[in-house]
Amino acid sequence: MTTARRFSGIYCPNIVPLEKSGEIHEAELRAYVDWLIVRGVHGLYPNGSTGEFTRFTAEERRRIIEIVVDQAAGRVPVLAGAAEANTRETIAACEHYAKIGATAVAIVSPFYYKLSSESVYAYFREIGANTPIDVTLYNIPMFASPIDLDTVRRLADECERVVAIKDSSGDLPFMMSLIAAVRPNRPDWSFLTGWDACLLPMLLMGCDGGTNATSGVAPELTRKLFECATTGNLDEARKIQLRVTRLFDALFGAADFPDGFRMGVSLRGIASGSGRTPRSERQRAGEAATRQQLTALLAEEGLS
Amino acid sequence: MTTARRFSGIYCPNIVPLEKSGEIHEAELRAYVDWLIVRGVHGLYPNGSTGEFTRFTAEERRRIIEIVVDQAAGRVPVLAGAAEANTRETIAACEHYAKIGATAVAIVSPFYYKLSSESVYAYFREIGANTPIDVTLYNIPMFASPIDLDTVRRLADECERVVAIKDSSGDLPFMMSLIAAVRPNRPDWSFLTGWDACLLPMLLMGCDGGTNATSGVAPELTRKLFECATTGNLDEARKIQLRVTRLFDALFGAADFPDGFRMGVSLRGIASGSGRTPRSERQRAGEAATRQQLTALLAEEGLS
Amino acid sequence: MTTARRFSGIYCPNIVPLEKSGEIHEAELRAYVDWLIVRGVHGLYPNGSTGEFTRFTAEERRRIIEIVVDQAAGRVPVLAGAAEANTRETIAACEHYAKIGATAVAIVSPFYYKLSSESVYAYFREIGANTPIDVTLYNIPMFASPIDLDTVRRLADECERVVAIKDSSGDLPFMMSLIAAVRPNRPDWSFLTGWDACLLPMLLMGCDGGTNATSGVAPELTRKLFECATTGNLDEARKIQLRVTRLFDALFGAADFPDGFRMGVSLRGIASGSGRTPRSERQRAGEAATRQQLTALLAEEGLS
Amino acid sequence: MTTARRFSGIYCPNIVPLEKSGEIHEAELRAYVDWLIVRGVHGLYPNGSTGEFTRFTAEERRRIIEIVVDQAAGRVPVLAGAAEANTRETIAACEHYAKIGATAVAIVSPFYYKLSSESVYAYFREIGANTPIDVTLYNIPMFASPIDLDTVRRLADECERVVAIKDSSGDLPFMMSLIAAVRPNRPDWSFLTGWDACLLPMLLMGCDGGTNATSGVAPELTRKLFECATTGNLDEARKIQLRVTRLFDALFGAADFPDGFRMGVSLRGIASGSGRTPRSERQRAGEAATRQQLTALLAEEGLS
Repeated sequence: MTTARRFSGIYCPNIVPLEKSGEIHEAELRAYVDWLIVRGVHGLYPNGSTGEFTRFTAEERRRIIEIVVDQAAGRVPVLAGAAEANTRETIAACEHYAKIGATAVAIVSPFYYKLSSESVYAYFREIGANTPIDVTLYNIPMFASPIDLDTVRRLADECERVVAIKDSSGDLPFMMSLIAAVRPNRPDWSFLTGWDACLLPMLLMGCDGGTNATSGVAPELTRKLFECATTGNLDEARKIQLRVTRLFDALFGAADFPDGFRMGVSLRGIASGSGRTPRSERQRAGEAATRQQLTALLAEEGLS
Repeated sequence: MTTARRFSGIYCPNIVPLEKSGEIHEAELRAYVDWLIVRGVHGLYPNGSTGEFTRFTAEERRRIIEIVVDQAAGRVPVLAGAAEANTRETIAACEHYAKIGATAVAIVSPFYYKLSSESVYAYFREIGANTPIDVTLYNIPMFASPIDLDTVRRLADECERVVAIKDSSGDLPFMMSLIAAVRPNRPDWSFLTGWDACLLPMLLMGCDGGTNATSGVAPELTRKLFECATTGNLDEARKIQLRVTRLFDALFGAADFPDGFRMGVSLRGIASGSGRTPRSERQRAGEAATRQQLTALLAEEGLS
Repeated sequence: MTTARRFSGIYCPNIVPLEKSGEIHEAELRAYVDWLIVRGVHGLYPNGSTGEFTRFTAEERRRIIEIVVDQAAGRVPVLAGAAEANTRETIAACEHYAKIGATAVAIVSPFYYKLSSESVYAYFREIGANTPIDVTLYNIPMFASPIDLDTVRRLADECERVVAIKDSSGDLPFMMSLIAAVRPNRPDWSFLTGWDACLLPMLLMGCDGGTNATSGVAPELTRKLFECATTGNLDEARKIQLRVTRLFDALFGAADFPDGFRMGVSLRGIASGSGRTPRSERQRAGEAATRQQLTALLAEEGLS
Repeated sequence: MTTARRFSGIYCPNIVPLEKSGEIHEAELRAYVDWLIVRGVHGLYPNGSTGEFTRFTAEERRRIIEIVVDQAAGRVPVLAGAAEANTRETIAACEHYAKIGATAVAIVSPFYYKLSSESVYAYFREIGANTPIDVTLYNIPMFASPIDLDTVRRLADECERVVAIKDSSGDLPFMMSLIAAVRPNRPDWSFLTGWDACLLPMLLMGCDGGTNATSGVAPELTRKLFECATTGNLDEARKIQLRVTRLFDALFGAADFPDGFRMGVSLRGIASGSGRTPRSERQRAGEAATRQQLTALLAEEGLS
């Protein structure tokens, strides 16, 4: 075990551009991957929550990873969202993503049902024992069964293939406790935060990076924040964090998550298309105004 | 529109027996369907939450419905759980279930993401406009985006094919308000409760029936409760409700939902098999004791 | 122990009319007590949550009980809210209310801090061992530490002076379980519900009555509901429950609780005055419209 | 308006030592004040949540402030908790604390009832317009009505006497947004955090200090953390934060809050006495073990 494989930087949980018909728009997804890499994301994270993994079929999820890995072509690492309907299907996805060259996978805790800590442990333990590819635990308590401190510690102790956690709770004391509990025995473990509004303090407290939806719309900004934070330019970092938060809040509030981020991506010039969630007449009526507000905000940031 | 098609009675949200390999155990599922019908369930509800619909693949979900519809063979109505990854997939499932002869479908509100009321409305509106089979809204706020009163009212007003709601919140004032709001314009609508511990008061306040997990383990008991409630035998009904609640609480608490119900089914003699969720050593160590407690409880009810 | 002392019927958690200066308006409080008794409340419950007990000083709380007991003059029982800053002060209040002739006291579970079940038990155990007057436990989980089933059972077993529970959770399965757990050993215990929107099903499932804020505005209506429910006139009772719910929802939603009820009381002709909570300009601007809506609703009910 | 009056450092929300009879132990409270000042707290904050303000009578609350102000004798500032039953009583307390020489007051948002943002605003607006002493808003959403961003902004704009916020939510993005929203117009405002487990990142993100319960047990440690944080010794600060968190978690979990902190104070040699909350037999049975664990932990920190 070395620390060589630690993740570092901002991974983009990319949305998937869609055709008018609702199909995956492969050409535009490839263009978006290029666009993100050119603008400085440190890695890609397809099939995350921002990537709406639950709204694609199992086949589509595989195709998305294949396209992204192929297009990234080794320029940046790819963390592939691999959660499927059950343990067997998830392990099969891990095997596939290992074969096609993903860097690692991220697996969200079981959702819909609220599992006990012990069941969450058993789920990841089973995967950890059978995966041929490194696994990142994905903790997002607002959507899925929480992964608690003791569960992370047990998995870190028992599963060499479990190498990281991505936490979207934004709970800083929890993250600090996690790092303190796990790092001594597993210096190879990475800690990533998924809550953009506290990216800076998370980095200052020891996180290796983040998987941040804002990086899909403003990769220049999140890159700069990461660099200021890691080079000790705290004053500048604080200012950029406030801008990131303002943008994140606006994108988060623009529509039901993650549709605001899809809208933001389209305002950057990517033909992201409409999401797969139907919109009511009332919702459609309000979209022009929302789009205008986001446009103004992006313009203020010099991102139009 | 007539009131003829109102649902009535207790629909069993049946679990799916599994082989040791984890595959669907078709022969035992067919036997279980017979067993339930013989013991008095008024209908079947495969691919509900108790049926662990999220832990099967899309293909398996179809196969489960096919088996249950085929085996029921018209003896009781079949309410088919039809939620898929997105609107298009869900409508395709509705079409398939219409073709193979399901009585109606039940569709849970979108989950994982927490949708706004307006998005929940738009989702069901789109389905309601395109489904060839009657739709039951499935409201289960502890697991999925809530379907609020105004949303139900709008859907009842606008979608002839939306004909019922199954509510698992156990919120009685909400149910009473729903019935008062919808029934005047839609006398054909059915109201079903999925929270077994308040089945009796729900029936007394106007529900047509329930989809109750306890009926999968003790169909005799839930049948009797329904009959006492609807024939005005309130004293007896209250006593049976307490027994149903005791059993429901025990099955609910025995393991992460719905594994306790799977265990209860096996104690009635159906080879239900283990669920698809891995169990830790600690969990396996405690199972014998739990099984014994449930056995004792079923024996007290004369159900062994 | 006999069952003679069971509470029965609808107790009004009365608001306290205030002078323009904010002082207790004694004459109007006396008039209001008469008004309520004449219109059929079965009992009075001063210093409840609707009575804003936390917004009065300890001295004022005593004075309110003294006025109400004196004015009721034995015509109806008085359940005196007796929660004070700590156990000693609460017991002192119990002693005082016993001396001046209150029928019993109601004591809310400790609030602000969220106590464990064991601490809630210890609190009521200490009071139960030292009170010279019968005690009603007051469970209102939305505002105070919850009193769970096991705690109620222990207190019922150990404290003869603890004789009732008033539950404002509206959780019907919880209430049914409570009644089933406590009544066999304590046939003298009373069960009261404080959630007006499920008063009828609570009565049908075995409650002895309620302490219902709506009875302070429309005592005629809650009285009628109680009578229909207890004489088996279920069809009529269901209709009245819907009217009670509509009124309750309107009063609850009119302003921050319990100011809407204070407004409703004033619309019935009692000079209830403004509450003690300051209102902003925006809030004052909206009050006329709210008042009009409530007036219209009361007129529909023939209560103006 | 100058920035001269900004709070700075760690204010101790001190517990109040009690006699065996439950009375305030004045001599020991005075000794405790000295002990804290000697060990480096930057200020005192009597009648906070740790100080159990709700469990004292109004008279006792005044006496506590009088003792603490008198004993501090100008050596450190005293922030006096001043929340009373209603606006008038709270303003009267402000007047009294101004007269006896408290530095400022802290007023918790209304509790028990859950007030709307507008009512929270109106409450503090009324106080802000009438107080003769500087006011710190006290936001503790787990116990009291939340004070949201817009409410803080309005109060900062309109009330010169409102000069600070103490936030115990531990919500770092909220705090960063607060600081960004208020500081430009009110450079005199102070931002204090009350959640010890994220004291360091709060300080790094711009807080002026904290009111931290851990400082009542280990003032040496919180002082050192503050100094390392403000002098840029980030590596050392991170280590101390982890020790503070470990201690805080242990004290928080030792008993119902804040009894663990009272226990911790007694282990430092102050005769803090038992709290005012009765303990059950079961609770008393577990206390020796808890006390031992805390003793061991304090010994590890060299604090025995």
